[in-house]
Amino acid sequence: MRFLLLAVILLGCNLPLHASIPTLQRVEPLNWWVGMQHPTVELLLYGKNISSLTPALTYPGVAISQVTRTDNPNYLFVELTIAAEAKAGQLPLQLKQGAKVALRYDYPLHPRAPGSAKRQGFNGSDVIYLLTPDRFVNGDPRNDTVPAMLEGVDRAKDNGRHGGDIAGMQAALPYLATLGITAVWPTPLTENNQPAYSYHGYSATDLYQVDPRFGSNAQFRDFVAAANRRGIKVIQDIIVNHIGSKHWWLADLPAQDWLNFPSGDAKGRFVPTNHNRSTIQDPYAAAGDRQLFTDGWFVDSMPDLNQRQPQLATYLIQNSIWWVEYAGLSGIREDTYSYADKAFLSEWGRRIMQEYPHFNIVGEEWSPNPLIVSYWQAGKQNKDGYVSHTPAMLDFPLYDALLNALVEQESWNSGWIRLYEMLSNDHVYADPFNLVIFEGNHDTARLFSVLNEDMDLYRMALSYLVTMRGIPQLFYGTELAMTSPKQRDDGKVRADFPGGWAGDQVNAFTGKGLNATQRQAQQLVTTLLNWRKTASAVHNGKLKHFAPDRGTYTYFRYNEQQTVMVVLNKQNEAVTLDLARFREVLATDKAAINVLTGNVVSLQQPLSIPARGSVILDIR
Amino acid sequence: MRFLLLAVILLGCNLPLHASIPTLQRVEPLNWWVGMQHPTVELLLYGKNISSLTPALTYPGVAISQVTRTDNPNYLFVELTIAAEAKAGQLPLQLKQGAKVALRYDYPLHPRAPGSAKRQGFNGSDVIYLLTPDRFVNGDPRNDTVPAMLEGVDRAKDNGRHGGDIAGMQAALPYLATLGITAVWPTPLTENNQPAYSYHGYSATDLYQVDPRFGSNAQFRDFVAAANRRGIKVIQDIIVNHIGSKHWWLADLPAQDWLNFPSGDAKGRFVPTNHNRSTIQDPYAAAGDRQLFTDGWFVDSMPDLNQRQPQLATYLIQNSIWWVEYAGLSGIREDTYSYADKAFLSEWGRRIMQEYPHFNIVGEEWSPNPLIVSYWQAGKQNKDGYVSHTPAMLDFPLYDALLNALVEQESWNSGWIRLYEMLSNDHVYADPFNLVIFEGNHDTARLFSVLNEDMDLYRMALSYLVTMRGIPQLFYGTELAMTSPKQRDDGKVRADFPGGWAGDQVNAFTGKGLNATQRQAQQLVTTLLNWRKTASAVHNGKLKHFAPDRGTYTYFRYNEQQTVMVVLNKQNEAVTLDLARFREVLATDKAAINVLTGNVVSLQQPLSIPARGSVILDIR
Repeated sequence: MRFLLLAVILLGCNLPLHASIPTLQRVEPLNWWVGMQHPTVELLLYGKNISSLTPALTYPGVAISQVTRTDNPNYLFVELTIAAEAKAGQLPLQLKQGAKVALRYDYPLHPRAPGSAKRQGFNGSDVIYLLTPDRFVNGDPRNDTVPAMLEGVDRAKDNGRHGGDIAGMQAALPYLATLGITAVWPTPLTENNQPAYSYHGYSATDLYQVDPRFGSNAQFRDFVAAANRRGIKVIQDIIVNHIGSKHWWLADLPAQDWLNFPSGDAKGRFVPTNHNRSTIQDPYAAAGDRQLFTDGWFVDSMPDLNQRQPQLATYLIQNSIWWVEYAGLSGIREDTYSYADKAFLSEWGRRIMQEYPHFNIVGEEWSPNPLIVSYWQAGKQNKDGYVSHTPAMLDFPLYDALLNALVEQESWNSGWIRLYEMLSNDHVYADPFNLVIFEGNHDTARLFSVLNEDMDLYRMALSYLVTMRGIPQLFYGTELAMTSPKQRDDGKVRADFPGGWAGDQVNAFTGKGLNATQRQAQQLVTTLLNWRKTASAVHNGKLKHFAPDRGTYTYFRYNEQQTVMVVLNKQNEAVTLDLARFREVLATDKAAINVLTGNVVSLQQPLSIPARGSVILDIR
Repeated sequence: MRFLLLAVILLGCNLPLHASIPTLQRVEPLNWWVGMQHPTVELLLYGKNISSLTPALTYPGVAISQVTRTDNPNYLFVELTIAAEAKAGQLPLQLKQGAKVALRYDYPLHPRAPGSAKRQGFNGSDVIYLLTPDRFVNGDPRNDTVPAMLEGVDRAKDNGRHGGDIAGMQAALPYLATLGITAVWPTPLTENNQPAYSYHGYSATDLYQVDPRFGSNAQFRDFVAAANRRGIKVIQDIIVNHIGSKHWWLADLPAQDWLNFPSGDAKGRFVPTNHNRSTIQDPYAAAGDRQLFTDGWFVDSMPDLNQRQPQLATYLIQNSIWWVEYAGLSGIREDTYSYADKAFLSEWGRRIMQEYPHFNIVGEEWSPNPLIVSYWQAGKQNKDGYVSHTPAMLDFPLYDALLNALVEQESWNSGWIRLYEMLSNDHVYADPFNLVIFEGNHDTARLFSVLNEDMDLYRMALSYLVTMRGIPQLFYGTELAMTSPKQRDDGKVRADFPGGWAGDQVNAFTGKGLNATQRQAQQLVTTLLNWRKTASAVHNGKLKHFAPDRGTYTYFRYNEQQTVMVVLNKQNEAVTLDLARFREVLATDKAAINVLTGNVVSLQQPLSIPARGSVILDIR
């Protein structure tokens, strides 16, 4: 359903005939809840000439506290203040013309789910699985093409829709649980009724509806509940920076100042961002460059939102909270983070974390520079005084370092030293243990291809990812060593997951048709992730690493209960390590188990690391 | 003179004949001053069995406050406390055996030069000229070979001594003044009586004597005075991290704990540093790695000092202050900064700046990472609470970025964007305007060679250097576009300066034999540096830069009096700039002069930048 069915009752027909009769086409948020920390919710009412009406409400504990009109008479913003003691129910909203009630709308005020405010966000105990819903599993072929949507299915096109959906994600839950996944991050599921490239998901045309080709809002909520039952958290991908050019607002913009680079008509004007994210902290940046970074658009089909506009800011904040509360989310991933207005981002994060103090939000700041990424993490003492409330960031600097470390020849300034030195910068982060570390995503080349399809390096990458500080994130198909061109090629990177479509010759779920490499990769990931569930030292233990030596890199995660020793050897020969060097962290009287082989290892004698080997020792 | 002539009077011969008679061979510092801020000076007394004696002193306002003996009986450390009202004079130090005075030594206490404490260190108004004394000008061939020194002259050897000296530096002062230089930093002049590579200067064998092959202490002091008279400040290159293996201590180590990795004999044990400077701030570094970084040696011939040893720490601090006060320095360049003990470095800087509050010290931390370099600058709020008192650092990160920016092809992540993004990190520095920026030094390949002998790029590099925030430093010979292998080759990088030796066919001082490139380079540097003297906006004005656009990079320095606009164009075509983009900093009603051509330029119309051109506009 693209438009809401509204229980609108048209009353009072004593208006002059030449006056247009106000209508009510949309109310957003679709509902709200009693018992939220923040006392207000601002409703967007959309309908022909709606701004000519005056809202009124009589309901115990709920009052209209503010009414805002814009330069577009078809919008009316009504702020409700909801007292702590207010009860759930239908709010009988009246819209009056003078003394007459012209329209009436029962606005739903729901009770919150038990424990909603205390929900635990994703954290260091989790492993996140990022998937592109259209390319993962086609659980319901009936919704592959939906008549009301501009783009239908065409699996032959790299950039077309392939039919994956929420039903498929739900069907895959047993597989993901067996693999050892504890959190799923699907790329955006909200409606993207764009004429092309709509599978991508980052061009929303309705911020309150799941795209019908993926399923429905209720289906998404059911998926979250089913995932939670299997110990899998769900993270929603949210974009506050931009919308799709076919968003319903664009047919009748709420106000000219909702878009950056407004054009006088609803469309806005495409002026590209300069992508100069360094301007945000640069003490010398020109004001014009800084503004172009934030206000510029990504592409013509993604109008850029002006979050400085107060009603839009509130709209976006409420929309994020709505999804958390409605669907039962355990986290948010915020797209193109720094491109939005930074004062807005601060307030957006504050409002969400105010409602859910143990929640987690991870922002995307695609920069190899820890000074830039760390700026956005909550708790950072920034030189300019900027305060963020976003607890986590994606660790792009460590991602870059990891790939370089693996593919480069070892030398004093290449290879492992990249990782060793990048981690030394962690003092700039407020909380490096709450960074999301990853081996690739929907915008990068596939890990196995970057590593030249070298299984030894692939094993090192995954061994690193599951033991390093932070929250590991895998991209779907990495567990099958899926490949892609080395140069970015979105459609190919986001290839269909084997077994997700009826008749697939290769099936990751059943194992049918998997080649030796795929089986080996899947087994490795399963072993690592399931071991990781038991490894508290890796979830939140301390980290100590040792300077790379003879092509090997050695580090430890440790807490009171457990020590995990990781040694990665890029040399073509076995390396023998004298454990005396590690005595400051390594007790020698404990039992050590090699996680990948299951063998018992003695810590009383030198440790042998196979040529190009990854060794993870679980020491308790 | 390698050893001091000491006025030692041997008294009292009633010792048993079998007891060795104490002697006094050295006293350091050579003298001290009345009126210093810090009230004490600790004398090192060296002589056979000197520790068996007890010092005594009767002098108004001066008292012995502490006596320290080490595990070596040939050293005695005597701390004097000097009251504010004490007068200059000879302190009649007595060394007693029981009640008898065994030795007597008159220790000189001098008056300070007028204004000594208020001296102004080098700053943003300066341009520093780094030179290698042995390779600059041979002003006095008589000292080329000195019999008492292990290495004589051999100009044919890249790594041998070539004969340059202080007399040569002094003779070159008119040339340097005409060039526009306002500060000179010679690599170390202290005695390096090493068997090989002694021209280098970083292996001191006596911290209180100028190497006789360069001249004498008095000659150096005269050179500083002569330079000052020409408006040229002098910066001394000081090394607190290590000494030369032929240092006189090494024949009879003051205490075993004066060296890192002591060996039980005086030599110490060569254990190489791991060079892992990242360990200093790394929250995860192994203690062993961090210690090896600081305590490890550079090379076998440079024993590493343990500045945690209190007498040694005081010795080094006093030595630095001694040179400032004795020679009349305007600055110190501290070599291999982070390799010394960091608590010591803090105290070392504090003590020097306490004596000379307007002084300047620049540290060498050879890292491309601003997080690492900024840690050491005074005023930085470090996460670990570390406090530095060293006001300036060499800007290695910007040096790297400058060379990459010039030699790389332009793209979204290469070329000018390197400089643009590196500067954006300046928020990590306590005072980026007090960084020393440079185009190369004695340890790097020559600028003109790195730039593939491209005069257009060379002009951009120098235009950048003289207008960017910070204190520019040139390496001697850069003004002649001197060349070197692109791979580091110290002996060739530190080639003889043309005209510095009698009979040189090419002479930079007279212009004789200079080719067109050399003349062009010398003229460019002369124009830029002499203009810079008048450009207050460049000395300490604000900086605003604009994101690189179409192969050009544009920035401004500005204050109330002056605006300087710099545009560097790497394109092979001329570029026309619409000045509207720069209106936030650029007034259009002022007169603009092109510094390199002298032409008047209109700011009322688009600005044309020649292909591969450098334009500096002086707007007042």
